[in-house]
Amino acid sequence: MKIVVLKFGGTSVGTIEKIKNVANLISLYKKKYKVIVVTSAMSRVTNNLISKSKKISDNFSDQEYDVLVSSGEQVACSLIAGRLIHKGFKSRSWLAWQIPIITDDLHKNAKIREINKIKIIKYLKTGGIPIIAGFQGMTREGKISTIGRGGSDASAIMLAKFFKAERCVIYTDVEGVFTTDPNKFSKAKKIREISYEEMLEMASLGAKVMQPVSIQDARLNRINIEVKSSFVKKSGTLITKRTNIINNKIITGISSTQNDAKVTLVGVKDKPGVAASIFKPLSKNLVNVDMVVQNISANGKETDLTFTIKKEDLSKTKKIILENRNINFRDLIFDKEVSKISIIGVGMITTPGVTFRMFQTLANKRINIQVISTSEIKISVLIDKKNIKKALTALHKEFKLDK
Amino acid sequence: MKIVVLKFGGTSVGTIEKIKNVANLISLYKKKYKVIVVTSAMSRVTNNLISKSKKISDNFSDQEYDVLVSSGEQVACSLIAGRLIHKGFKSRSWLAWQIPIITDDLHKNAKIREINKIKIIKYLKTGGIPIIAGFQGMTREGKISTIGRGGSDASAIMLAKFFKAERCVIYTDVEGVFTTDPNKFSKAKKIREISYEEMLEMASLGAKVMQPVSIQDARLNRINIEVKSSFVKKSGTLITKRTNIINNKIITGISSTQNDAKVTLVGVKDKPGVAASIFKPLSKNLVNVDMVVQNISANGKETDLTFTIKKEDLSKTKKIILENRNINFRDLIFDKEVSKISIIGVGMITTPGVTFRMFQTLANKRINIQVISTSEIKISVLIDKKNIKKALTALHKEFKLDK
Repeated sequence: MKIVVLKFGGTSVGTIEKIKNVANLISLYKKKYKVIVVTSAMSRVTNNLISKSKKISDNFSDQEYDVLVSSGEQVACSLIAGRLIHKGFKSRSWLAWQIPIITDDLHKNAKIREINKIKIIKYLKTGGIPIIAGFQGMTREGKISTIGRGGSDASAIMLAKFFKAERCVIYTDVEGVFTTDPNKFSKAKKIREISYEEMLEMASLGAKVMQPVSIQDARLNRINIEVKSSFVKKSGTLITKRTNIINNKIITGISSTQNDAKVTLVGVKDKPGVAASIFKPLSKNLVNVDMVVQNISANGKETDLTFTIKKEDLSKTKKIILENRNINFRDLIFDKEVSKISIIGVGMITTPGVTFRMFQTLANKRINIQVISTSEIKISVLIDKKNIKKALTALHKEFKLDK
Repeated sequence: MKIVVLKFGGTSVGTIEKIKNVANLISLYKKKYKVIVVTSAMSRVTNNLISKSKKISDNFSDQEYDVLVSSGEQVACSLIAGRLIHKGFKSRSWLAWQIPIITDDLHKNAKIREINKIKIIKYLKTGGIPIIAGFQGMTREGKISTIGRGGSDASAIMLAKFFKAERCVIYTDVEGVFTTDPNKFSKAKKIREISYEEMLEMASLGAKVMQPVSIQDARLNRINIEVKSSFVKKSGTLITKRTNIINNKIITGISSTQNDAKVTLVGVKDKPGVAASIFKPLSKNLVNVDMVVQNISANGKETDLTFTIKKEDLSKTKKIILENRNINFRDLIFDKEVSKISIIGVGMITTPGVTFRMFQTLANKRINIQVISTSEIKISVLIDKKNIKKALTALHKEFKLDK
C-alpha cells in the first residue's frame, strides 16, 4: 500500500473556494496513492477562538483551551470530507479521539505518543480518503489535547511516520523554501532540495515555512517532506536526507533576522565564573541567549562581554542584570539596530575557505562584523541592521544562489 | 444528591458578556444543588456553519453535517467551563463522546437512547460542575450525531431524566410562556404554571418557546421544566403535570397561526371513499392536512370539502389534486388569507359551555368562523386573517387572561 500524507495549512483551506480547490488537489493523488489528509483550521478561526478565551479569562484553563481551539480543525475536516463526497469519492472526517491519536497530557503543548492504525488502515483498504483533524490529540484519560501552534505539521509528520508514508506533502501559501526571504529580496530562488539539517538552520533562523520541531521529527524518522503551494501548480521544495541530494552549491540559503538585540557589559572582571554568573539568572528566567563573544582582556583584569537576545526579552534582561549584585561591570550597552545574517549549506563541510569568502564579501562592501558564531553547516554574523539588504545581495551573488 | 439541569439557549450564550452572565447564574444554583449544565452553540454560529455546508454541496453529507455543526456547542461549553474555572469553581466541558451520550444512527435527526452516568456522577461527587455540549450525541459506532435543530432542549430533558433531576431549567431569551404572543398582543400575560398537555398544544400551534418533541419527552418522564429568561431576574413558567397545578382559569392560553392556507373542493361526489381518494395522495407526498370540514350534502349527490394545509405546501397540493384523475370536483378554491385561532386549557374538560362562549364572543365582534376543530383541551377556529387582532383581544378578555 503506497501511502501519501497531504497536509493543508490554514490559508489553503481559508475559504469555501479554497476548500473546493483542496478537494481537487486530493483527487489527483488518489490515482496513484492511498491518501491520508491532515488539515489545519480555516485561517483566522484559531486566532478568533483564542481571542474569545482571553476575553473570558486572562488565565484561561489549558484543558478548556484545547477543547475550544480544536473545534477549528473539526470544521475544516468535515468540510473537506463533505466536498470529496460531493465529488463522488468515499471520504470521512476523523477526529483525534476517533482514531485515536494519543498524546501526553501536557495541554496546549502536547506531544503525540501513539497513533492507533487499525481503523484508518481498514478504512483506506475500503478505498476511503480519511480527512484527519490536525493539531489535536487525546490524552490517555480521554481529554482533548492540542500540540501547540503550527501543530498540524507535527500531526502530518507523525501520521507519515506511523503509516510509513512514502511522502508527506505540506501544502501552504508559499511555493517552497527559498534561498532567502523572497519578500525582502527579489532575486531569491526556490530551492529544489534541501537537507533536514539545512532546513533546521533555515527554520530556526527565520524561514517560517515549518516549525523546527516538525523538521526534527521528520529527520529522526527519515520522512521525505515536500513543501509546496496549494495555489500554484509548481513543484515545491523537497526536504530529505543529505545523501539523497545531488547539490553542486556550497551554500543552500541565506537567512536574516529582525528581532535580535545586542547586550554589551563593559569592564567585566576577567576571572573564571563571571560568564556563568551572568547567564545563569538569564536562563532561569527563560531568556534565550544566542551569540556570545568575550573580548581578549587587554590588561588581564577587565574584559567586555557581548551577547544577543530576542528584542522582546530586552527589558527583562536589563532588570535581571541590574538587580543581580554578583554581576559587576562598568557600563551596560543595549543595541536594537542589529541583524544576524547566516549562510547555510552542508557543502561547507567539505569546502574550505567558506568563512573567508563570507568575511571578504562583507569587507568589500565595508560592512562591519560585530559578532560571529558558526556551526558545522552555518556561519552567522551580527551586523548593523541598515546593511542587511546590501549584505544579502552580495552574499547571494558570491555563493551563486541567483542561478 | 439533589440535581438540577440548567440549559442555556443560543441567545443566552450569544456573546462573551452573556457567557459571563451565564456563569454567574450557574454559581447561584451551586449553593443548593449539584448542577448539570447543557448549552447550545452561541447564536448565529450554527446557521453560519450550515451556510458553509450548503456552499460546499447542495447535498452535503448527513454524517459530515453532524461533525460540522456539533463544533458550535463544543466552543460554547469550553467557554462556560473556562469562565467558571476563572471564578474559582471546579468545572469542565463534556462532549457527548466523552460521557458518552449514545444515540441511534439517524444522522442530523438522531434520538438519544442512553446516557452513561458513571463519569458524570463521579465528577459531580467531587464538587465539579459539568458543562455538557447539547444537541450532540455519539452513535454506537463512535460517530458524532446531532439530534435536530432545537435539540439542546432534548439533551437537557434526557439528562434530567437519566440523572433523576429535581428540575430542568430552560434559560432562553423570553421570560416564559405567555397567554398569547406578547409581540403581537401587548396585554399578553406570563403564565406561572402550565400542564404538559396545554404546553404541547401551545407549542404546536405557534408558541415557539420549546419544541413539541421535548415537551412530550418531559411529559412522559414527568420532568418539571422551568422556562425563564437569562437576562431578567424574574420567575418564569413552570411546565408540569396537571395535578400539580392549582389553576382557577378555564383557559390557559390563546394561540394564532400565520402560515395556514385553506383549500376547498366544490362539487365533490357525496359517496364513501371520496375523502380518502383526496387525502391519501396528499399524505403520501408529506402534505400535512390539519382541519377538515365537509358540508352536509344539499341534494344527496354533491358536497363541498374544505381543509387547511401549511402555506408552503400550496403549490404541491394544487398539483396533486389536479393531476389525480380519481378526484372529481366542479371547482377548486385556495385561500391564503386565513388564520387559525385556538383557545387552550385543561379547565375546559370540567367546564361546560366553553365552545359556546368562544363562538358567541367572535359572533359579537362579527367575526365569521370558517372551519372548527376541537380536542379535549383545545378549540380551534379558522377565521379571516384580518380579524386576528380583534379576535385575540376579545377572547383574551372573555376568558379573563388579562388578569
